[in-house]
Amino acid sequence: MPTGARLTASREMEDALMYLPRKGVMDFRKGQVIFDEAQPSRGLYLVVQGRVKMCVPLHDGCQTVMDIFTTDDFFGESSLVGAAHTHERAVALDHCTLMAWTPSEIEDQVGKQPRLGVALLQMLVKRSLDYEERLQSLALDKTPERVIRSLLCFADRLGARGEDGSATIPALTHQVISEYVGTSREIVTFQMNHLRQSGYIRYSRKSIQVYAGALREHLRQRTGEAIDWGTAEGRSMTAAERSI
Amino acid sequence: MPTGARLTASREMEDALMYLPRKGVMDFRKGQVIFDEAQPSRGLYLVVQGRVKMCVPLHDGCQTVMDIFTTDDFFGESSLVGAAHTHERAVALDHCTLMAWTPSEIEDQVGKQPRLGVALLQMLVKRSLDYEERLQSLALDKTPERVIRSLLCFADRLGARGEDGSATIPALTHQVISEYVGTSREIVTFQMNHLRQSGYIRYSRKSIQVYAGALREHLRQRTGEAIDWGTAEGRSMTAAERSI
Repeated sequence: MPTGARLTASREMEDALMYLPRKGVMDFRKGQVIFDEAQPSRGLYLVVQGRVKMCVPLHDGCQTVMDIFTTDDFFGESSLVGAAHTHERAVALDHCTLMAWTPSEIEDQVGKQPRLGVALLQMLVKRSLDYEERLQSLALDKTPERVIRSLLCFADRLGARGEDGSATIPALTHQVISEYVGTSREIVTFQMNHLRQSGYIRYSRKSIQVYAGALREHLRQRTGEAIDWGTAEGRSMTAAERSI
Repeated sequence: MPTGARLTASREMEDALMYLPRKGVMDFRKGQVIFDEAQPSRGLYLVVQGRVKMCVPLHDGCQTVMDIFTTDDFFGESSLVGAAHTHERAVALDHCTLMAWTPSEIEDQVGKQPRLGVALLQMLVKRSLDYEERLQSLALDKTPERVIRSLLCFADRLGARGEDGSATIPALTHQVISEYVGTSREIVTFQMNHLRQSGYIRYSRKSIQVYAGALREHLRQRTGEAIDWGTAEGRSMTAAERSI
């Protein structure tokens, strides 16, 4: 049932896991902080079960959601470059079960099993490529396209594929989506309503069902881009139109 | 003379280079494509001399500049996950001298020298953290703040520090800055003029001189944020104000 992207991700994770010693699991309840400025990270984490929101909080209570991780995803890799980057906050979105390895354990293990180094390198390269796509979307897309891209991304990474080709994402609030997209909760709600009325998505308190094929075609028509993001022609409505 | 950030970066690069066999150098003239969809990447590149622009081109001739690399920087790491991500284009911004290692050479060398794996991992983690800052800026900042942050970033990474504390960046066109910031060339020129009239920068065809301390304080006053980006309160003028 997983999509191509998840299959690829799983193959990598299995590689990395093949070379990592099993650790005792840790449980976090929904909403619990896993690490932040006050509670230091333990190192590199693996999501065994549940979902984790990684964000950068601002003083006024707002935050930007950098990523959402689910089963078999690693996070907290910033611990590998020392304690200077404690502005990240990881929070359990559901009840979560995690494993963690300290930076020294990772380095020792890479020394014993160099293929672990290669597997982790590949994982970080893929993450950088994801960030590049989001940077491009933030630089060039208007908000409706950014909301659509975030839904397609969540469908791909967090969704379970149904028989009708739709992907069902476990509950994700409009607030979390807005912090990921970089807009207000109200605008996300407006856009989600519009997409629901047009039949591209369905949602309830429990889940968001995304008709990814139709939604991707809708995005393509809006932006005039080819299906591959890399060949997008989304520039027609650029950031130049934003307030200066 | 290098800033703190460059010192840190250099330490890493020396680590990675300590474990990499020397290769023959390749020269590229200014404006020459190093790799793109048509000319495949040779693997992981090191800038020996000059500057390299990494961008994702769009069909209409526009592009987003993802990063600019200079002496001792590595780029082209997407080759480590295979040929699927050929939408990147690397172009020589100056006359450039480069070295390159194929993905197999990197993997073999990590096998022999696992510390190389750790050094490259740390480099990619730092790059991800840079992307996170840019994502946050694109999501929350208006264009003037984005231009200021890009100048501070270039001053830090590409600039030579003068005796008066200013950083001198070799020529960088307003077009390149606009493709990095995600706005039009005209808006960048308008903002640069404004910053020049206010005494925060000076520029000519040959270079941009950035008074980084004063410019950082100016940014802080504009956004009300603490000096550490991670504690920014820049949310007051958010993407919510953009067209939906």
